[in-house]
Amino acid sequence: MSDAILVLNAGSSSVKFSLFLLRGKELELWLHGQTERLSTTPVFTAKDAEGKTVSERRWDNAESFGHEGAIAHLVDFLRGSMGSHRLVGIGHRVVHGGPDFSEPVRITPEVLRRLEAFVPLAPLHQPHNLAPARRALEEMPTLPQVACFDTAFHRAQPELAQAYALPEQVTARGVRRYGFHGLSLEFVAGVLPTVDRKAAAGRVVVAHLGNGASMCAISGGRSVASSMGFSALDGLPMGTRCGSIDPGVVLYLLNELRMDPRAIEKLLYEKSGLLGVSGTSSDMRSLLASDAPRARFAVELFAYRVGRELGSLAAALGGLDALVFTGGIGEHASPIRERVIQAAAWLGLELDPVANARGDQRVTRATSRVPAYVIPTDEELMIARHTRNVIAG
Amino acid sequence: MSDAILVLNAGSSSVKFSLFLLRGKELELWLHGQTERLSTTPVFTAKDAEGKTVSERRWDNAESFGHEGAIAHLVDFLRGSMGSHRLVGIGHRVVHGGPDFSEPVRITPEVLRRLEAFVPLAPLHQPHNLAPARRALEEMPTLPQVACFDTAFHRAQPELAQAYALPEQVTARGVRRYGFHGLSLEFVAGVLPTVDRKAAAGRVVVAHLGNGASMCAISGGRSVASSMGFSALDGLPMGTRCGSIDPGVVLYLLNELRMDPRAIEKLLYEKSGLLGVSGTSSDMRSLLASDAPRARFAVELFAYRVGRELGSLAAALGGLDALVFTGGIGEHASPIRERVIQAAAWLGLELDPVANARGDQRVTRATSRVPAYVIPTDEELMIARHTRNVIAG
Repeated sequence: MSDAILVLNAGSSSVKFSLFLLRGKELELWLHGQTERLSTTPVFTAKDAEGKTVSERRWDNAESFGHEGAIAHLVDFLRGSMGSHRLVGIGHRVVHGGPDFSEPVRITPEVLRRLEAFVPLAPLHQPHNLAPARRALEEMPTLPQVACFDTAFHRAQPELAQAYALPEQVTARGVRRYGFHGLSLEFVAGVLPTVDRKAAAGRVVVAHLGNGASMCAISGGRSVASSMGFSALDGLPMGTRCGSIDPGVVLYLLNELRMDPRAIEKLLYEKSGLLGVSGTSSDMRSLLASDAPRARFAVELFAYRVGRELGSLAAALGGLDALVFTGGIGEHASPIRERVIQAAAWLGLELDPVANARGDQRVTRATSRVPAYVIPTDEELMIARHTRNVIAG
Repeated sequence: MSDAILVLNAGSSSVKFSLFLLRGKELELWLHGQTERLSTTPVFTAKDAEGKTVSERRWDNAESFGHEGAIAHLVDFLRGSMGSHRLVGIGHRVVHGGPDFSEPVRITPEVLRRLEAFVPLAPLHQPHNLAPARRALEEMPTLPQVACFDTAFHRAQPELAQAYALPEQVTARGVRRYGFHGLSLEFVAGVLPTVDRKAAAGRVVVAHLGNGASMCAISGGRSVASSMGFSALDGLPMGTRCGSIDPGVVLYLLNELRMDPRAIEKLLYEKSGLLGVSGTSSDMRSLLASDAPRARFAVELFAYRVGRELGSLAAALGGLDALVFTGGIGEHASPIRERVIQAAAWLGLELDPVANARGDQRVTRATSRVPAYVIPTDEELMIARHTRNVIAG
């Protein structure tokens, strides 16, 4: 019998979970899974630590299912699976901690109210993140719950890095550069000292490249700048999100193309990025396998923008001691790493093509003045650790 | 008696003119001036080449005056001043040449129709730029007129530098990174070989820092990337314009702050940038002279963003051989140059504080691996040259 920590990541179209067992000082992944396609044909899958499916279920009645249904089924599944293990806490991934929360926090009714006030800052994600926390708080008020934020890691940034050149009546409403992917970045920054102690104490850019993607300048372990800004749209092009665009483009879509705000939101969040440019896929694997000119252009544009952001973030750091790739694309798409490293020769990076193709931890030559590494991320484990630590007080 | 070329720069709130005389192969500035404050209390001033005022006039009836009144008075003034000189052509500054025009063009009714099609791309400027050209075309159809574009210099950029990660149905409507300040950049790029022949053949960033501001990566004399994008809003914070902001900010202003598109346009074009951040002034001279914390923050934010863009543009170039400052701030604000050069030590720049304070042409030490220069710009002369060349065929 062990104590267990549940990690919940309730997104807009899926609810993911991981269950960790506390083994002394270690957290051991026991079960993980998700309910996907919440708005079409929901399917629940649970796997053990080795990836073997231990439970699966499908529903056809999507309309009445939703996030509520996904959580209800997860509760049922856990009740039947916990055996003699004891749930001691839930860690929630919460996208937005606003300007205030610079670290994980125990969820109380008061904290929940404060986090709900950030819904306007992340209307597509924050409500889903918080709903299961509210329900658990009502049904199991004594069970410790912890909110872990994608923004918190970046609150260490200098004010200059967080500021937009907007008047105070707007910035006072919380319009600033928040940065996201903080849990992934924090995990990677925590691993880096075991990979390269010297670089970890210096100036590092971590490229979290996945379906969502951002890059972060980290100095001595602290975030000093991010490619992402106020929302999850800015910076790099992503699977379906546009990345940086001129605010004048949004005005043009409104004034000249007569699009309404909802249609623009859908365009920029769901129809742009790799999908928009290629016209065929948001999946880097498909694009890399394609010979279609627009698929190739999407790949090149992604790598080009990573290179531009790398320069901008190196400026924020005043130089570069290491580059780290993580996230699905960063960990697995060697052709993307190849392009990025080759374009970064001016910064002192020298690709090791064999190590890169193999996916070694170090993908630059021994002679490379600045090394590049691949470090797999684990946001769920980061959340579990935070949850354990907050509970332990 | 000489041939003369008139240069017209008809903006949103002023009409500027310069009159150049053709002296052999040279263009000699003879008269220049402007009508300012078109929508409040119009005032016309004309000066000679030494800056001595030769004519001045004020009007109180702003409402019935407008751009029409400014042009009408300019025609009157020129009729009375030309003496035996002969007007052989008019060069117009036109902000937008769209995706097509990569060099200046002789204005015909057909060209004018094509340029008017770009009004939706620059609704605040393009109509004013074109109105005097249309009028002159009607009244003096045989007088050669030439349109010189702020965008043309950037059409040499690789496709990757011009692309947004948006779907084709949007990009096909002309939504791409155009870049502006091309006439200033082209002028400076033309002077650079006489200042540093080696750098001019290599990788240079020109920082055009004025009330409008942008930076351009120039490789072997050709633009390869700009900090500005689709509109004149993107990139650096400016006197009253916001510079880069997350498109999610515009959605937030629409959805949460319930602002309408016109109010957002006004906010981002007229109330942001140095003015918005400082709360007091859009003028760098005032801000540098102020001890107010928000004025200081505006100064630091401007310099910080210049530094970030410098890194991004160095990435586009694959390194940096020289940095050039131009424009009102670039030419005259030594404290801004100082901050930018000191923050760019990682790129190999080493400030010469004495030369910088003096405003020498070279403001880095002799030992600086990468030099920085101050090169005054002259957009009007650039337009006059283009006009002469197009007329000469």
